[in-house]
Amino acid sequence: MNTMQTAKVQKKFNKLRSNKVFEILVIGIIIFSALVIGAKTYNIPPGILQLVYLLDWVITFFFLTEITIRFLGERNKIDFFKNGWNIFDTIIVAISLLPMQDSELAVIGRLIRIFRVLRMVSIIPEMRLLLNSLLVALPQLGYIVGLMFIIFYIYAAVGSTFFAVINPELWGDISISLLTLFRVMTFEDWTDVMYETMDVYPLSWLYYLSFIFFTAFAFLNMVIGVVVNVLNEESDKIRKEEGQDSQQVSIEDLDKKIEELKGLILQRVDPAKR
Amino acid sequence: MNTMQTAKVQKKFNKLRSNKVFEILVIGIIIFSALVIGAKTYNIPPGILQLVYLLDWVITFFFLTEITIRFLGERNKIDFFKNGWNIFDTIIVAISLLPMQDSELAVIGRLIRIFRVLRMVSIIPEMRLLLNSLLVALPQLGYIVGLMFIIFYIYAAVGSTFFAVINPELWGDISISLLTLFRVMTFEDWTDVMYETMDVYPLSWLYYLSFIFFTAFAFLNMVIGVVVNVLNEESDKIRKEEGQDSQQVSIEDLDKKIEELKGLILQRVDPAKR
Amino acid sequence: MNTMQTAKVQKKFNKLRSNKVFEILVIGIIIFSALVIGAKTYNIPPGILQLVYLLDWVITFFFLTEITIRFLGERNKIDFFKNGWNIFDTIIVAISLLPMQDSELAVIGRLIRIFRVLRMVSIIPEMRLLLNSLLVALPQLGYIVGLMFIIFYIYAAVGSTFFAVINPELWGDISISLLTLFRVMTFEDWTDVMYETMDVYPLSWLYYLSFIFFTAFAFLNMVIGVVVNVLNEESDKIRKEEGQDSQQVSIEDLDKKIEELKGLILQRVDPAKR
Amino acid sequence: MNTMQTAKVQKKFNKLRSNKVFEILVIGIIIFSALVIGAKTYNIPPGILQLVYLLDWVITFFFLTEITIRFLGERNKIDFFKNGWNIFDTIIVAISLLPMQDSELAVIGRLIRIFRVLRMVSIIPEMRLLLNSLLVALPQLGYIVGLMFIIFYIYAAVGSTFFAVINPELWGDISISLLTLFRVMTFEDWTDVMYETMDVYPLSWLYYLSFIFFTAFAFLNMVIGVVVNVLNEESDKIRKEEGQDSQQVSIEDLDKKIEELKGLILQRVDPAKR
Repeated sequence: MNTMQTAKVQKKFNKLRSNKVFEILVIGIIIFSALVIGAKTYNIPPGILQLVYLLDWVITFFFLTEITIRFLGERNKIDFFKNGWNIFDTIIVAISLLPMQDSELAVIGRLIRIFRVLRMVSIIPEMRLLLNSLLVALPQLGYIVGLMFIIFYIYAAVGSTFFAVINPELWGDISISLLTLFRVMTFEDWTDVMYETMDVYPLSWLYYLSFIFFTAFAFLNMVIGVVVNVLNEESDKIRKEEGQDSQQVSIEDLDKKIEELKGLILQRVDPAKR
Repeated sequence: MNTMQTAKVQKKFNKLRSNKVFEILVIGIIIFSALVIGAKTYNIPPGILQLVYLLDWVITFFFLTEITIRFLGERNKIDFFKNGWNIFDTIIVAISLLPMQDSELAVIGRLIRIFRVLRMVSIIPEMRLLLNSLLVALPQLGYIVGLMFIIFYIYAAVGSTFFAVINPELWGDISISLLTLFRVMTFEDWTDVMYETMDVYPLSWLYYLSFIFFTAFAFLNMVIGVVVNVLNEESDKIRKEEGQDSQQVSIEDLDKKIEELKGLILQRVDPAKR
Repeated sequence: MNTMQTAKVQKKFNKLRSNKVFEILVIGIIIFSALVIGAKTYNIPPGILQLVYLLDWVITFFFLTEITIRFLGERNKIDFFKNGWNIFDTIIVAISLLPMQDSELAVIGRLIRIFRVLRMVSIIPEMRLLLNSLLVALPQLGYIVGLMFIIFYIYAAVGSTFFAVINPELWGDISISLLTLFRVMTFEDWTDVMYETMDVYPLSWLYYLSFIFFTAFAFLNMVIGVVVNVLNEESDKIRKEEGQDSQQVSIEDLDKKIEELKGLILQRVDPAKR
Repeated sequence: MNTMQTAKVQKKFNKLRSNKVFEILVIGIIIFSALVIGAKTYNIPPGILQLVYLLDWVITFFFLTEITIRFLGERNKIDFFKNGWNIFDTIIVAISLLPMQDSELAVIGRLIRIFRVLRMVSIIPEMRLLLNSLLVALPQLGYIVGLMFIIFYIYAAVGSTFFAVINPELWGDISISLLTLFRVMTFEDWTDVMYETMDVYPLSWLYYLSFIFFTAFAFLNMVIGVVVNVLNEESDKIRKEEGQDSQQVSIEDLDKKIEELKGLILQRVDPAKR
């Protein structure tokens, strides 16, 4: 195959890749594959199960074809793997191809097929944007999460020190205590946990109430922090756009022109010269 | 009936339709009809039940009259059905008229009578505005709801794969698992669900905590997205109003005038000419 | 007593009323009276109970004196009753004076003594401001609460129609159903309510989930509405202040002056005239 | 030791104190000491327990050394104790040094070791900033918390008056009632509490619903208040920065210059002079 022929085929694939109908077909197949995964969780007669397995292989083959088309459609083959989503897609498809007869591996294989649904995010641009904005916001929240973990850790240490004897299932060691405190934070039967320890330490309600106040307050701060961040970014964007659009003439420019005018009058209409 | 007479009657009906007292009467009847529907849910003696049924027919007749008046008051009869609320009102009244002796149909008939309360929204303009703003905000939230459903679906698939054996009532198939996960998201006895699976898979708390973090984070984003959208729209409105009100003269206009002035000075006070 | 003497006494009372120490004393007594009310809820020996009752009468007498001082300190006696808080204070004190030996009335008397704590709000200005802002925000939320009640009513009517047979304690009539729905909205054991009806109507989860979505969405709107309102008011205030402070010269003013300048040049430096 | 030598050592310590590697080492030791505290909550064999105790002493010694270095590195020794975090650090280390053989004191000693984790906040500047912002926001919320406590107190007094006979464990006295009301506010099995009292007082749902509305509304106000405060502070900062950066020329300046120009034209191009 000579280079001209290759370029021709590549152009064709590239065209197919950015085709709207092809895209909708891929989205449809992803939804269908999600439904097939869902169907497997029902008790279905063996005949239909066979059909489902067959469909599964058809989908796997389709995804293999689709990723091959996208790969061949790429001009520079290395660029393909620079995109995180492409790597993710390739791994998902590659593992789906591995034969997994062993029951334990079969479960892992099934799990990986579930993550095919995430390909929806890689295909729809608005969703990719949404997930990116989520990932961008994460580091901003880092220190608040850190502070919250310190609060959790101190309370868990205090809790497992005093309450381990009362109920080892809830306060046995520090990791169980952390889980119990998370439960308290979600208000899930937290009074049952409290009343139990209050029988032994009547003042232990102070422990729970202070914990709830601290975490609720920290959470409140987190929400506000994110809102303020997002709003600031938005207003920055607006200010930038306004700067580019309308403020072609600034007050400083006017100032310079008026100065110029003054110089002109002083120079030309000088009574001394006349 | 000649056309002049028709126009006269129509004018009269139109006047009646936009009458404030008539409007309040309709609102009153709607509230009364809601109370009648509510009254039927109580165990009431047969005598009063008869009265309630009678009242029901009186209300139905009143609504029929009211909609007829509004229809006759409309100049262009086709415009009447262009309004979604009018179609809704007509359907509600039309079905109320059908005789439903059969017990099953009677229940459906009763249900439709309940939706008469929604006519309150179609009559009070502020409520119609409110509902419209709710409907406008919906598509903006579409992609976030989509992303959230993907998270739900993946977790439900994983959950029903691993936990179906432990408790088929909660994790039996993917649709039950989705419901269980919604329950976990609302923190409703979610620890009971977790402790049950932790007996078999001790690390399954990771599954629940990550799910709660993802959904809480996505929900947080949703709230912020809506707030930012609404605030931006508000500030856009304010900017527009300001633009129309006060900024009749822009800095650009001043710039042009100063340039003009400079030209004038250069032209008229030319030292060469003297 | 002649008028001069009265004026003298009034001035003295007025001075006492606005005295800082007197104010702190009143606040102290209010807190003390709240503690006395709280103390009565404990099982206390009869001796101390006698002391508490005595203290109660001392406080009542103090409040009577305090309100008399404030009343006498007022120049125009009718103005005193134009203030809602004064009427509130007077009623509280008046009822405290009535002898209530009958056990049932005694309970009501005790209840009224509790509301003395609210006098804290009437005395501390910041708290009065806070409560006023709460009352101001209420009508803005009126239509949203109205819309929410319509949603509640429709769901309650549907619920009591279908689920009354399943569990009359939760869905017996429309008022009980409203309470049950409020419980569902707070996520309080809502799955127990749902699973019960799902045994009879397997699709009834649609009823609960749609209800939760509608109410959560309406609530979200409410929060946003209030936030936007408050923010707009704040920014309006800031704009007003800025308008008064800095924008003494507008761009329109500059425009007029430049026009004036142009006229001057055209008039004085006319080449035709030279 | 002469002063020159002291200055030399001090400089060395000061350098060590602000060393990045030393800082990371301290953070690492703090995390390690937190893990050691966590490890003690597990059932560990006596041999490892001995090791843990040994490590505990090593950490205590390290912290003593670290605080000594920081103290010696300070030029003015009194400044060291002006910083709240330094005092906190010193107290933590000092108490860790006391020998606590008695079992009861040992528990307190352990508790104090837990608070070493808080030293993380004193070392990482971003965390100190975060905690300071939390402390700054607290007084702003003071009056709202006060108002909320008044609501709580009144409801608790009413609750313990009427419901103490029904369930003394929930409504026995005013302090237990306050705890029960906090539970109701967190929606924790609040319907169980309500249904119990509704058997005796069928209208007591009014008590709970009004309480939930009041507290939810007050909380909503609190959140909004904080958001508005934070946003205002942010916009103030932005306005200040803008004021310093760009608005070097104001409209007022332009106005003055145009006036000057007018005066110049009037003076120099006077037709009377020609």
